[in-house]
Amino acid sequence: MKAKWLTGIALFFLLASGGVAFGQADSSAILIDRSRFVEDSALIRRLADTILTDGQTYDNLRVLTKKVGARLSGSPGFYKAERWAWQALEEAEADKVWMQECMVPHWVRGGKDTARFYGPGVAGGLDIIALGNSVGTGAKPLEAKVLLVHNFDELDQRKEEVKGKIVFYNYPFNPLFVETFAAYSDAVRYRGAGAVRAARYGAVGVLVRSMSESIDNVPHTGAMNYVDSLPKIPAAAVGLRDADRLAALLEGHADLTVSLFTHGYMLPDTLAHNVIGELKGTVFPDQYITVGGHLDSWDPAEGAMDDGAGDVQSIEVLRALRAIGYKPRHTIRVVLFANEENGGRGGRKYAAAAKEAGEQHLLGLESDNGGFTPRTFSLSLSDEKLALIRPWLDLLRPYGTYAFEKGGGGSDTNPLQGAVGAVVGEIRPDSQRYFDYHHARTDVLENVNKRELELGAVNMAALIYLVDKYGWSPD
Amino acid sequence: MKAKWLTGIALFFLLASGGVAFGQADSSAILIDRSRFVEDSALIRRLADTILTDGQTYDNLRVLTKKVGARLSGSPGFYKAERWAWQALEEAEADKVWMQECMVPHWVRGGKDTARFYGPGVAGGLDIIALGNSVGTGAKPLEAKVLLVHNFDELDQRKEEVKGKIVFYNYPFNPLFVETFAAYSDAVRYRGAGAVRAARYGAVGVLVRSMSESIDNVPHTGAMNYVDSLPKIPAAAVGLRDADRLAALLEGHADLTVSLFTHGYMLPDTLAHNVIGELKGTVFPDQYITVGGHLDSWDPAEGAMDDGAGDVQSIEVLRALRAIGYKPRHTIRVVLFANEENGGRGGRKYAAAAKEAGEQHLLGLESDNGGFTPRTFSLSLSDEKLALIRPWLDLLRPYGTYAFEKGGGGSDTNPLQGAVGAVVGEIRPDSQRYFDYHHARTDVLENVNKRELELGAVNMAALIYLVDKYGWSPD
Repeated sequence: MKAKWLTGIALFFLLASGGVAFGQADSSAILIDRSRFVEDSALIRRLADTILTDGQTYDNLRVLTKKVGARLSGSPGFYKAERWAWQALEEAEADKVWMQECMVPHWVRGGKDTARFYGPGVAGGLDIIALGNSVGTGAKPLEAKVLLVHNFDELDQRKEEVKGKIVFYNYPFNPLFVETFAAYSDAVRYRGAGAVRAARYGAVGVLVRSMSESIDNVPHTGAMNYVDSLPKIPAAAVGLRDADRLAALLEGHADLTVSLFTHGYMLPDTLAHNVIGELKGTVFPDQYITVGGHLDSWDPAEGAMDDGAGDVQSIEVLRALRAIGYKPRHTIRVVLFANEENGGRGGRKYAAAAKEAGEQHLLGLESDNGGFTPRTFSLSLSDEKLALIRPWLDLLRPYGTYAFEKGGGGSDTNPLQGAVGAVVGEIRPDSQRYFDYHHARTDVLENVNKRELELGAVNMAALIYLVDKYGWSPD
Repeated sequence: MKAKWLTGIALFFLLASGGVAFGQADSSAILIDRSRFVEDSALIRRLADTILTDGQTYDNLRVLTKKVGARLSGSPGFYKAERWAWQALEEAEADKVWMQECMVPHWVRGGKDTARFYGPGVAGGLDIIALGNSVGTGAKPLEAKVLLVHNFDELDQRKEEVKGKIVFYNYPFNPLFVETFAAYSDAVRYRGAGAVRAARYGAVGVLVRSMSESIDNVPHTGAMNYVDSLPKIPAAAVGLRDADRLAALLEGHADLTVSLFTHGYMLPDTLAHNVIGELKGTVFPDQYITVGGHLDSWDPAEGAMDDGAGDVQSIEVLRALRAIGYKPRHTIRVVLFANEENGGRGGRKYAAAAKEAGEQHLLGLESDNGGFTPRTFSLSLSDEKLALIRPWLDLLRPYGTYAFEKGGGGSDTNPLQGAVGAVVGEIRPDSQRYFDYHHARTDVLENVNKRELELGAVNMAALIYLVDKYGWSPD
């Protein structure tokens, strides 16, 4: 192609020449004095400049993924990540870096997960990975016949057939959800509750179709849960192509046995830390704006998207504000949460501590949806409050954010809402590729685009600047 | 992460329940009767359903990239692509498929391009690729000292040093342009005109920093031009990391010789074809809506993004409209243009033929910006006309399009505007990764995401449906 696109930036400065209405017609409903936006747009441009040229986002992610790597809560990698986070926050020139103690679950994979199937005239391997928190199969593989079900309703209908079998949940991502997170929310119950539901009817193990719509065969792990009243049976995720193959055989009435060999076990809870860096507020030092991601990751890869991206973007917000010499009115805190994946302990601990200390929190902003090109922010604001800040979109649009959505934060920041009444939110970048890599061995640096990652940090920094300057009721 | 996102679709249907104002506040400025949108939203949903579940977009691209491959105008691959296009349009159930003759340039690379540098104490290889249309170095490598310049101004200032040298233009993509196409427009003059400008001062060859901001070292080809009044000197693009390395040595005053070996030559223009498929209009059969991409590609890879994506998306528009049984009011034409990359002959031929036949064209819509997640459409409409169609965004937003931009089409559809007064436009998806692959050996199927590609087709089909139904002045 050879098309020439106008740059939105040049256009923006052209339009931002005074208090008159400017920007796109679709945000002119709210009448505010926009003359001040000239100053804001210049400051946000400076934030963007430093992030896109001198930024540490990608280099920090390179070190986190390649030098630290996987960092499941309680694992040696996690403690290495704590030290990395401390150093990265120091290098970003936080006024203060500290660690907040947090007890975390300590699950251990214990070895390489394997599975194969065999039956009359057929046999083959399955690319699997045990689900997080799952028990292992013991000293030797678990061998059992397989029962394919498409959903919980079918499981209930066929409960008489379950006893002694491995239940295989083959519930696909629904491609009709345009937002892939909606497909994930729809499908993930089979990963989370599949073992408990099957154990109730006497199953001895569970296989789950991976939570993804990728075209490859990589299996995706993630948290599952047990209840104490039922036997704990091993559970593993199967790569999509192997799931298709297994399903085709079973739907052709093949009498298949699966041999499943996993090794997971849970150790007692252990001590870890939320790693926190602050820029001290100059006007309201005791009022906080929190921005963060989670430091822990699943273990098959490097946790580059989930949630290394959110970690380095959050650190970059602080670095960029410092680099341009901005003096925040409120104290800005970067929090790298200790445990999201298999317990959500980091976010709950941070919120509980904030409540105990009687802290006032203006915003808890999270980045945990991948380092892709920014599109929107979700915020726990009423329609009326959202309308008040919608003019800010004229300032964010040149960098990718075109809408504020009514919603909430992520699992690390949502507890702040209940605990101290904070507004919580999250950045919602392009979601199409996220579940290709999520909790899988493909969640590596090479699948993160440097500029997409940086643009996320730009938009986060800009929003935090606007909240710091105007609060939630700009006039 | 574990966040749950509301699906925009469910929300949309909830809101679209009557003629009352709905959707986001930012589009309520235009008052129209939206009750009809309920029907439109249902029809667009059916288009999306077939594209996202039974679609041929990705399978068509797989065949085009893996079975046809590179398809530079005039090459054997191009004629293979013509046959592929014919068959794909037949399979999409076009009413009529035909070929429009078009004379195209016929440049041949002629062999593997290589380069190395050496000087006192240093030597190494350079990952290069000759620019399209460039002459070769002859039967043996061209050896000459290298002069690094950062831009044309510096070339002019140092014109006395140019004679007998290879000029190395090391002008980078400007990372401050958020839209990468703006950075491309800014930098591409060194690829297009660098040889002519250097030949004027007696240079014997040209190296150009690749038109990209990728982190890898892959060189990117693309068209360059000569003028008859100046010697034609060979020109090649250098991968970014090798460009950095060469620049560091030269800026350290190393006295470097480059040995450049390229083999390109131009053959006489040759006959090729725009491949065209039609769905006949039921009300205005003699009024046309064109949607297309270009069939030719550069030769280092498979032309998956540039512009296989646009080809298969355009074919999918026709297939999907047919699959849901839609009877278009106007004739809808899919055009796979014969020559965009090194001549723009396909688009100009199509426009000239339309003018000659006195055809009326409502819209020429192009997809030539990669198969990434949709964001906006650019259209050659006035602000007033754009305001009239802005309510359509409520119908497109669930699938990714959030804005119409004032602009134009791409290089294949723009000629339709001058020739027959058509409105021209293009889909502008997320641009961050496009120039990582553009005209490079990395432009392969594996870098195209199936869902992103499909969503582009969904948004294109939806826009074409709306234009077909309402024209450009919906009341």
